[in-house]
Amino acid sequence: MQAVPQRRSRVPFESATSAQAGLAARYRAVRRASTALADGLSDEDCALQSMPDASPVKWHLAHTTWFFEVFVLERFAPAYVPAEPRYRVLFNSYYNGIGEQFSRPLRGMLSRPGLDVVRRYRDRVDEALCALLAGASLPDEALALLELGTHHEQQHQELMLTDVKHLFSLNPLAPAYRDRGARRAAPAAPLEWVGFEGCAAGIGHDGSGFAFDNELPRHQQPLMPYELASRPVTNGEYRAFMEDGGYARPELWLSDGWTARGTQGWTHPAYWAARDSAWFEFTLRGLEPLDPARPVTHLSQFEADAYARWAGARLPTEFEWERAAGAAACEGNFAESGALHPEASPALPLAAMYGDVWEWTASAYAPYPRYRPAPGAVGEYNGKFMSNQYVLRGGSCATPRSHIRATYRNFFPSAARWQFSGVRLARDAG
Amino acid sequence: MQAVPQRRSRVPFESATSAQAGLAARYRAVRRASTALADGLSDEDCALQSMPDASPVKWHLAHTTWFFEVFVLERFAPAYVPAEPRYRVLFNSYYNGIGEQFSRPLRGMLSRPGLDVVRRYRDRVDEALCALLAGASLPDEALALLELGTHHEQQHQELMLTDVKHLFSLNPLAPAYRDRGARRAAPAAPLEWVGFEGCAAGIGHDGSGFAFDNELPRHQQPLMPYELASRPVTNGEYRAFMEDGGYARPELWLSDGWTARGTQGWTHPAYWAARDSAWFEFTLRGLEPLDPARPVTHLSQFEADAYARWAGARLPTEFEWERAAGAAACEGNFAESGALHPEASPALPLAAMYGDVWEWTASAYAPYPRYRPAPGAVGEYNGKFMSNQYVLRGGSCATPRSHIRATYRNFFPSAARWQFSGVRLARDAG
Amino acid sequence: MQAVPQRRSRVPFESATSAQAGLAARYRAVRRASTALADGLSDEDCALQSMPDASPVKWHLAHTTWFFEVFVLERFAPAYVPAEPRYRVLFNSYYNGIGEQFSRPLRGMLSRPGLDVVRRYRDRVDEALCALLAGASLPDEALALLELGTHHEQQHQELMLTDVKHLFSLNPLAPAYRDRGARRAAPAAPLEWVGFEGCAAGIGHDGSGFAFDNELPRHQQPLMPYELASRPVTNGEYRAFMEDGGYARPELWLSDGWTARGTQGWTHPAYWAARDSAWFEFTLRGLEPLDPARPVTHLSQFEADAYARWAGARLPTEFEWERAAGAAACEGNFAESGALHPEASPALPLAAMYGDVWEWTASAYAPYPRYRPAPGAVGEYNGKFMSNQYVLRGGSCATPRSHIRATYRNFFPSAARWQFSGVRLARDAG
Amino acid sequence: MQAVPQRRSRVPFESATSAQAGLAARYRAVRRASTALADGLSDEDCALQSMPDASPVKWHLAHTTWFFEVFVLERFAPAYVPAEPRYRVLFNSYYNGIGEQFSRPLRGMLSRPGLDVVRRYRDRVDEALCALLAGASLPDEALALLELGTHHEQQHQELMLTDVKHLFSLNPLAPAYRDRGARRAAPAAPLEWVGFEGCAAGIGHDGSGFAFDNELPRHQQPLMPYELASRPVTNGEYRAFMEDGGYARPELWLSDGWTARGTQGWTHPAYWAARDSAWFEFTLRGLEPLDPARPVTHLSQFEADAYARWAGARLPTEFEWERAAGAAACEGNFAESGALHPEASPALPLAAMYGDVWEWTASAYAPYPRYRPAPGAVGEYNGKFMSNQYVLRGGSCATPRSHIRATYRNFFPSAARWQFSGVRLARDAG
Repeated sequence: MQAVPQRRSRVPFESATSAQAGLAARYRAVRRASTALADGLSDEDCALQSMPDASPVKWHLAHTTWFFEVFVLERFAPAYVPAEPRYRVLFNSYYNGIGEQFSRPLRGMLSRPGLDVVRRYRDRVDEALCALLAGASLPDEALALLELGTHHEQQHQELMLTDVKHLFSLNPLAPAYRDRGARRAAPAAPLEWVGFEGCAAGIGHDGSGFAFDNELPRHQQPLMPYELASRPVTNGEYRAFMEDGGYARPELWLSDGWTARGTQGWTHPAYWAARDSAWFEFTLRGLEPLDPARPVTHLSQFEADAYARWAGARLPTEFEWERAAGAAACEGNFAESGALHPEASPALPLAAMYGDVWEWTASAYAPYPRYRPAPGAVGEYNGKFMSNQYVLRGGSCATPRSHIRATYRNFFPSAARWQFSGVRLARDAG
Repeated sequence: MQAVPQRRSRVPFESATSAQAGLAARYRAVRRASTALADGLSDEDCALQSMPDASPVKWHLAHTTWFFEVFVLERFAPAYVPAEPRYRVLFNSYYNGIGEQFSRPLRGMLSRPGLDVVRRYRDRVDEALCALLAGASLPDEALALLELGTHHEQQHQELMLTDVKHLFSLNPLAPAYRDRGARRAAPAAPLEWVGFEGCAAGIGHDGSGFAFDNELPRHQQPLMPYELASRPVTNGEYRAFMEDGGYARPELWLSDGWTARGTQGWTHPAYWAARDSAWFEFTLRGLEPLDPARPVTHLSQFEADAYARWAGARLPTEFEWERAAGAAACEGNFAESGALHPEASPALPLAAMYGDVWEWTASAYAPYPRYRPAPGAVGEYNGKFMSNQYVLRGGSCATPRSHIRATYRNFFPSAARWQFSGVRLARDAG
Repeated sequence: MQAVPQRRSRVPFESATSAQAGLAARYRAVRRASTALADGLSDEDCALQSMPDASPVKWHLAHTTWFFEVFVLERFAPAYVPAEPRYRVLFNSYYNGIGEQFSRPLRGMLSRPGLDVVRRYRDRVDEALCALLAGASLPDEALALLELGTHHEQQHQELMLTDVKHLFSLNPLAPAYRDRGARRAAPAAPLEWVGFEGCAAGIGHDGSGFAFDNELPRHQQPLMPYELASRPVTNGEYRAFMEDGGYARPELWLSDGWTARGTQGWTHPAYWAARDSAWFEFTLRGLEPLDPARPVTHLSQFEADAYARWAGARLPTEFEWERAAGAAACEGNFAESGALHPEASPALPLAAMYGDVWEWTASAYAPYPRYRPAPGAVGEYNGKFMSNQYVLRGGSCATPRSHIRATYRNFFPSAARWQFSGVRLARDAG
Repeated sequence: MQAVPQRRSRVPFESATSAQAGLAARYRAVRRASTALADGLSDEDCALQSMPDASPVKWHLAHTTWFFEVFVLERFAPAYVPAEPRYRVLFNSYYNGIGEQFSRPLRGMLSRPGLDVVRRYRDRVDEALCALLAGASLPDEALALLELGTHHEQQHQELMLTDVKHLFSLNPLAPAYRDRGARRAAPAAPLEWVGFEGCAAGIGHDGSGFAFDNELPRHQQPLMPYELASRPVTNGEYRAFMEDGGYARPELWLSDGWTARGTQGWTHPAYWAARDSAWFEFTLRGLEPLDPARPVTHLSQFEADAYARWAGARLPTEFEWERAAGAAACEGNFAESGALHPEASPALPLAAMYGDVWEWTASAYAPYPRYRPAPGAVGEYNGKFMSNQYVLRGGSCATPRSHIRATYRNFFPSAARWQFSGVRLARDAG
């Protein structure tokens, strides 16, 4: 197994020791954030799995721990004794390079180990890792894997939120994950078009700070002149599409989308519910009246694409998005805000490029030219999924702030609706 | 809604008041037994549903409470206020006469109400019912429904055990529901044949003590001379069938059974597992080496039938079984023994007719001549299931002792294997 | 392989030779009837399979021939050379005792051998068999198997009609199998109730003439007093059930029936179609306006049962039916009439017991006491299907006249609707 | 509906009339080729549908006729009376703009109209169209649609061959579509690597001659230096991958591919069959011993990709392929050769770029920048399928020669194996 240097932040003039200390701080912060997400959830909430795509919160807590145990402790802390040998299979998600995996759709069948046992498992691994980090200078590869592990865990933090939301949405009691705070009532800013010249855009990560292997290598991509909408599409705008027969007009849809719509019975975004002729939306704060000003979310790419066609526009490519995002500050409504739901976009030139909703692009998830997956089992992280998925950009209200950047590539199948996924329109210009 | 007198025990010369007092005692004992079954289970254990046929323990605890709330309190305790109006739908199993039901396969999606809330729900209903029973003399119909409710709850006690067993069987950690006690090591008594003359047998309940409506009316059934095996088939005998190619010889199987075997991949009874060329059996006490002397269990009717054909015998009809059971004392290895697994049968003329394993019969579950379902929603209890199921007799190691009797008819589809179901051979005589 | 004497007609004082000659005549007549059924069908019509339960007409023509080739010629005509060795597998329906079978749902994938080749296959086997029959006296077993083969072929004649009907029903052009003849317009006779005393009825075949093994042995069955309707339920009566919300009232249905209704979307009998607010019925003569006087047909047992419950009646047991049928002449609207659709019943005490529609009974298809399947592979004919099916009696408008009798037991799963299946009501008396 | 000029060949200085005459000649040739493909097939062969992805030959003959009837005659031949109004729905494939469509998976349920009726339908439309073309000068749009129709029909010619192959492959008799001719026995040329410099490649059709709308607009695509294999991968090479455990090593596969392999049970390419420890291949000439020198075919993209990874290479992008193909003459083993199977590649710099096997690329099927679907219902031809499919290039042994060109983009889902799909390796250079 070779080093995976591309995964490692490189800050010039930083000493090895201070890098290790910085990583230790990040490690502790990320780990604490995960357990904080489970606050207010019962043992039962954390044990259930509502669909094969989702996992129990308890599983997320265990699997992210497993990642550090298997990829870091097993290799770089020779004295470490695994908590329980059978966890190697039980909490392996999809790393064939590590070995067998417990069946994914059965993750919700594991009442044992209990949540308390999983918490102790976390503590044990944290102790060992903090001891390791406090000790002698670790090889670059160890630090790279450790840093990768923290970003990996942040991805699972987002999944804990989306998975709990899906689970609670099936419960007729409509439980709230977090108490309703004061809801910011704000109108939607008018939609403006922001123009971009044609150019050969530099796409992909430039090597400063952490990035996943799928953001590399940086390369040139020709772009023709185009325009992007100043903000994501709102609930109100989307409702107009619905009221104009959007779900009943095949000419607006991709063929597979039209079929998915039919077989899955889509007539509105996921989590919308009509009650007494008014629309409500199931949120992590419970069932709320639909706010027309907020960005529409929980759309499949098929719905995003149909909406765009109806609106006389199209989805942006991931390259158009990334080039535009370079100009925007990486700020927005992230998980840390506690809103856990998209907020109405302010009137800014390119509002809400980050946070609020993941923005579907038209781009199939594919390797960048000369992409090389990391060697060893972590090479399964991204590369083997580059098939039949599409790229989303910019993070959502469930994404941790320190996890997102302009070059970040998220990916889901076209029919997925359980992420906080929305749409920003694009169109040709010039 | 008319009275359902056939459901009510009739003990001659008993005064109304002492009957009510006796029922109150039975009520309290049955309710306590249910919560005792959840002892040692975690909140998580009680929340999960391992397949659509099974339900979470928490659901069983709530639904049995719902039964008393809806069928007794709502009608006979006018001042009673339901704990939560939405439970009416949430914990309705299949009573269309009561109204809508929450989707059965989604019972395991309900992390809320939590187990503690369900326990409080039980307490509240118990309090109201005990007050009702301690008060003025209740109408016969109320007492009949209440008694029905206790037998209903005992059925769910058995299901709690079989459902937890199925759940735990999916967990690679093979958890034990109860600690392993000392296992009684005993050889199997030799199989003898017990002969019965031809006759017109009286079949069905004779009216003394409680019975379900499906045990009525009592009627005559002609029987030709036959023999029954002195005890159920053992693991060792069944293994001989397997080793003789039993699962690969279509001539031994019913056509539907042969198909089920293929599509479900049966090569041995449910819960058997081969480890290093030895057979083990997953039990409520964890994984144990297979004991050849114990009755084989977790067979489908198809497997029971194929075994019988291989052994040159057949399944008994439910009438042959009931006629023979009249001669046997209603004693055996029931849930109260704590073994929670079949025990080797002693050398008795008709050993283990009760307890240990439910015995598959050849009889389709059908109404007795002139059967009338109870009026009202409780009439859905039995009648509407008289289609495409087969009768099992005698109770199992998971059945409460006071729940079983010679005329008791259990029923499951031919392919079901998750009950403690076994087989006693029969053959023609004379 | 032993003899199967019960399958062989025994006419007293008949010489072996004249029996053989009689059988030869029957053989020729039956074989001619099969090919006559294909008249008017194109090669394409005969090649298609519209669902796994149905088979192409060409397959029926080949399989019935295969039956004689494998069960008679292979054993009793040593010089016979099979037409094509691969047919042994290709045209084996379900006889594991003969060997492998070509996959049933793929029968419609066989454009080769073509219909002309199959016709030559028939000719070749007919020639060999007629030569055999014209020769020396054959052993009883050969004659029994040959007679069985003719009744087997008559069963397939009925299936050719029901299978072509299903195929044509999927075609928007609604093709007619036979030209519309003059339709007899007749009103329905009023429904009367015919009473029967309680008794110990003799059930099963009495040994004179041919019978299948499942009609044996004859035995006594106790019956309580009951009444049967004088004729089958009509379209008009069934429409009243529909208009009274019959398909939307769970209290009328068996639990499995209610589920089947929902998942299969039943709102009316199979082959009914609403056109401009009038009901039509797809028949073998094409689409025809629904005649309220004719017997309703293409009902599942679940629908028949729900209708009966709605009408305050029930389905008869097969024993009640057989006892009554003993009194009725075996006459009716059979395949030979050319109507190929039920006709309005005349005003007779027990009209249309035979022909018109198969009458669903409440009886699970089970072996009679001491039933023994025929030895050898033909023993698979009936016995292995005695599971999860229900008995129908009396034949239909697609049944050849010489094929039916009072003791004849047909059987299908409760949800099957593609046979000409209807319902005659019964109720308790006395 | 606007004109669709991009679909129309533009030959400079050609007069309108001679263009019309040329098109008439092409029309007649293409139509004749379709019916010639059905020569030697029986009515039954032409009626069957072996899977939802495939269609009966009869349906192809009718649908291609329907295309001309609906898109040309209905609009430009006002006096034309449709053969049968119900064909408008019956033979509509997927054009929502035209209206309803008969269910695709039921195309094989249509024994009527018979093949002879479909042939008359073709004659009737041909007559009307030839009369139209022989008459006054037609508007450009009519000619464009007519030309499109001929290319559309050529696509269906290829499908007739692949669909019949699939149907025949299910038949244990292994019928041959064409008699075996002399098979050219030739060794495989050694695999060489052909290098290409980095450049900004011009991609897409340049406007001379016919092209589909998905080949437009022409645009620049940057390419880094790369190499292409001199010929497709052979059966022998692919067998080495199999023998090296290729189907059992997850590290070689995309995640979705690994899953497809498992659920569909892939252990070798489609149509391979092991007989007595030797490999055979089902071809349109029947079952033949596997020739190691011929290109491997009937691979999914997943298998092609796994093979490439095993070989230390990768799939080319469609841009790399197109740039290389510009240098190669459009010659090869096409449908006209009559071989109907790939032939061993000669030792040429870039052998078999055209014909033999479609070559999977790594490129998701996506619109070129500023792509515009044709207006009206024919706009559904390509655009709505640009989702979850991957591009194949170069045509196959079943493609008509005049149908293919360097810019032609075929597309199928990654798991499709029933086309003549193979693989040419690529790798990075420089």
